[in-house]
Amino acid sequence: MANGTENWVMMVTAQTPTNIAVIKYWGKRDETLILPVNDSISVTLDPAHLCTTTTVAVSPTFQQDRMWLNGKEISLSGGRFQSCLREIRSRACDVEDKKKGIKISKEDWGKLHLHIASYNNFPTAAGLASSAAGLACFVYSLGKLMNLKEDESQLSAIARQGSGSACRSLYGGFVKWIMGKEENGSDSVAVQLADERHWDDLVIIIAVVSSRQKETSSTSGMRETVETSLLLQHRAKEIVPKRILQMEEAIRNRDFASFSQLTCNDSNQFHAVCLDTSPPIFYMNDTSHRIISIIEKWNRSEESPQVAYTFDAGPNAVLIARNRKAATHLIQRLLYYFPPNSDDLNSYIIGDKSIAKDAGINGIPDVEALPPPPEIKDNIPSQKYKGDVSYFICTRPGRGPVLLSDESQALLNSENGLPK
Amino acid sequence: MANGTENWVMMVTAQTPTNIAVIKYWGKRDETLILPVNDSISVTLDPAHLCTTTTVAVSPTFQQDRMWLNGKEISLSGGRFQSCLREIRSRACDVEDKKKGIKISKEDWGKLHLHIASYNNFPTAAGLASSAAGLACFVYSLGKLMNLKEDESQLSAIARQGSGSACRSLYGGFVKWIMGKEENGSDSVAVQLADERHWDDLVIIIAVVSSRQKETSSTSGMRETVETSLLLQHRAKEIVPKRILQMEEAIRNRDFASFSQLTCNDSNQFHAVCLDTSPPIFYMNDTSHRIISIIEKWNRSEESPQVAYTFDAGPNAVLIARNRKAATHLIQRLLYYFPPNSDDLNSYIIGDKSIAKDAGINGIPDVEALPPPPEIKDNIPSQKYKGDVSYFICTRPGRGPVLLSDESQALLNSENGLPK
Repeated sequence: MANGTENWVMMVTAQTPTNIAVIKYWGKRDETLILPVNDSISVTLDPAHLCTTTTVAVSPTFQQDRMWLNGKEISLSGGRFQSCLREIRSRACDVEDKKKGIKISKEDWGKLHLHIASYNNFPTAAGLASSAAGLACFVYSLGKLMNLKEDESQLSAIARQGSGSACRSLYGGFVKWIMGKEENGSDSVAVQLADERHWDDLVIIIAVVSSRQKETSSTSGMRETVETSLLLQHRAKEIVPKRILQMEEAIRNRDFASFSQLTCNDSNQFHAVCLDTSPPIFYMNDTSHRIISIIEKWNRSEESPQVAYTFDAGPNAVLIARNRKAATHLIQRLLYYFPPNSDDLNSYIIGDKSIAKDAGINGIPDVEALPPPPEIKDNIPSQKYKGDVSYFICTRPGRGPVLLSDESQALLNSENGLPK
Repeated sequence: MANGTENWVMMVTAQTPTNIAVIKYWGKRDETLILPVNDSISVTLDPAHLCTTTTVAVSPTFQQDRMWLNGKEISLSGGRFQSCLREIRSRACDVEDKKKGIKISKEDWGKLHLHIASYNNFPTAAGLASSAAGLACFVYSLGKLMNLKEDESQLSAIARQGSGSACRSLYGGFVKWIMGKEENGSDSVAVQLADERHWDDLVIIIAVVSSRQKETSSTSGMRETVETSLLLQHRAKEIVPKRILQMEEAIRNRDFASFSQLTCNDSNQFHAVCLDTSPPIFYMNDTSHRIISIIEKWNRSEESPQVAYTFDAGPNAVLIARNRKAATHLIQRLLYYFPPNSDDLNSYIIGDKSIAKDAGINGIPDVEALPPPPEIKDNIPSQKYKGDVSYFICTRPGRGPVLLSDESQALLNSENGLPK
C-alpha cells in the first residue's frame, strides 16, 4: 500500500438483475468449473422489481474477509465464493483514488481483506434465482473495485463458477450462455443476443406459488439427472442445439408465436428430464399444472399465443405476455382463478402495479367481479383456487448490471466498512 | 340354422383380469390397427379383486346386436367394438349343443345377432384399466361362443384392436405385448412370460387417488405425444428395447431389486414423455408425487427395495411389494400418511383384507396409533394427508381369462337373453 498507517475504506456498490431461462440449463459436464451440457438462453428481468444490490469494500483495517446477506453475516468459506474470489484477485489491477490519496497496487490485493454486503429486493427463499443475481453482483462489484480489465463476457466466466445461471445476469435483455468446448471453461461465457430495448412489448408476471414440499436443490438435482436420466443426453445433444438456433431467430424477429412455443416446450422438457431422474424430481405442483392448463387453453382459443410460461427449479410460474394488452388479460385470468387469501391486494400484486390498474383491478371488489374467461364459458362451474398463489410480481425485461455511484445507496458504512 | 322356428338361447360367460404395465405402452404407430411403438410388459392382477365378467348370448330371436355395461345399455357402434366383432365373426366355426339340440353352422354367424352383458367388479371410472379387462373379456367370451380355433395369443391380436392394453389381459402372470413388424398387425400379439405361480411372493396395493382434474384420455394423449414429443422416439427405439430384455430377466430370476428399479424408472419415463407433449399432459398429481416420495425414501433406507411403484394414465398408484412382510409395512405407511376421511375402514381397504389384519390394523384406533415410519424419525412433524386417497385395493398377480360354467354366474337370462 502507498501509505503506512491508514484507516481509509474504498467501496463500490452495484446492482445486478436476475434472469429467467427460456431455453433451460440443466446438467453439468464439469461440476467444479460449472460447465453445462448445453447452451441456454435467458431473459433478464427488470432490476426495479427483482435485483441484488451489493457493496464491496476494502480497507487496510479489515482483519478478514466478511460477508452479509440481507443484513445477516454469512460464511464466505463456500467453494463457490472462494472460486470467484480467487479468479477475481488473480486479475486485480492497480487502483488509485487521487482525491482520497489512496493507491492500491496490483500486488496489494492478495494481502487486503474485503467486506461484502448484499441485499435482494425480493424474498430470497421464494425460488426466484436469487443466487444468479447474487453471484453476478458479487463478481461485478468486486471486478469494479479491483479495476479488472475484463469485459462482461469475461466476467461472466468467473460468475459462472459461483452459480451457473449467474453468468447470464451480466447482461440485460436476451442472453445466451455458450456452453463452450475448452476443458478449462474459458469459452463457457455469456453473450448478449439483444438488449432490453430490442423487444420492449413483453410484459412478465411471476406467480409465486405456495408450496408444502421441500424442493431438491438445483445443484444436486441436476447432478442426479446427469447420472440417471436416459433422456437427458438426447435432449442436450440432439434437441437443444436446434432449439437454440430457433430461439435466437425468434428473438431476432420478435416472433412471439415461435418464442412462446419454444419457451413452453423447453420448460416442459426440462421438467420431463427431472421426472426421468432416479429418484424422480418434481418441481411443479398441482398449482403449476393448473396455471399451465389455463394458459394453454387460453392460447389455443386465440388466433396466436398470448402468453408463454416457464418454470425453474420450483413451482413458481414465470409468464411472458406478448404485450401490455395480453398482460392485462392475463392478470384478469390469474386473479379470477387465484383470488387473494387476504384483503390486502396491495401486497398480492407487487412490482409494476400499473398492469393491474390497466386491467381495471383497483381493489378486492374488482377481483370478485371478474367474469369467467370466455374460453371456459361452456364448462361451468369453473373452480377457483384461493390461497394457492402467494403473490404476483409484475415486471418486464430489463437492463444488466450497473454501478450505483450515489453513496447513500451503499450497504456499508464508508467510515468503518460495516453494514449500515 | 338347423331347425326352423326356434327360440333357444346359447350363452357363454367368462371372466377376464385387468393388468398393469411395468414397461409402459405409450404411442401407436398405427391408430386403426392399434400397433404400438414399443414392446410392453405387464402383470396380470388377481380377478378376485379386479375383473370383468361378460356373458355373450346368441339366439335366432334376437333382432339386433345389443350390449349392457354394469346393467346399463350402451352402444356397440363404436369402431373398436366393431373391429373386434368383425374379426371374431370372420373366424367363427360350427357349433353344436347336442343336449339342447342346437346346431349353428359357420355361415349362420353372419346372420345371428348377439346380446352381450358385461360387469366390472370395481368402479369403472376409477382409472383402473377397465377397458383392458372389458375388451379382453368381450373377445374371449365371443371366441368361446363362436368356437374359434385361435389360441390366446391369436385372440390377443383381436383384443388389441379394441383396446391396446387389452391384449395383455388374455394371460395370467407376466405378459409381454410384442410390438410386431407386420403392417397388418398379425405379429403384434401378447405372449406369457411366466404364469402367476412363478413369482407368488408379490403383493399389490393400489391407492385410488382423489382427483379434481379431468384427465386426458389415453387415446388422445398418446396421439399427441407421438405428434409432438421429441423424446418419445428416443425412448421407444433406444431405451425400451433394452429395458424389455432387462425386465424379462428380472422376472425370470425373481430379482426384485431389478424389477423394482425398472418398473419405477419406466413409469417415471412414461410420465416424462407425457410432460414433453405439447400441450403437456399431467396424469400424476401432488398425491401421486407424495406416494412416490414416501416409497423412494423408504426403499433407500432399506438394504434393498421393498416396493415398486407404477402409474398409468391417471393419479392412482399401483404399488408392488416384494413379499407379504413388505406389504404389511407398506399398508402401515400408507395409512399413516393417508388416514381415511370417514370411520369406515372396511370400505377404505378393499380386496384382500388379510394384509391389513397382518399389519395389526383392525379399526380406526389402530390407524391413529401408527407410529411415524422409522426412515422419517428425525424430520418431525411429518405431515398427513387425510382424504387425498379414496381407498386402497389389496391384491396380487393373478390368472388369465376363465370360462364360468355355472349358469348362476351368467349376466343374461337363459330364457330370453336379457340382463338378469
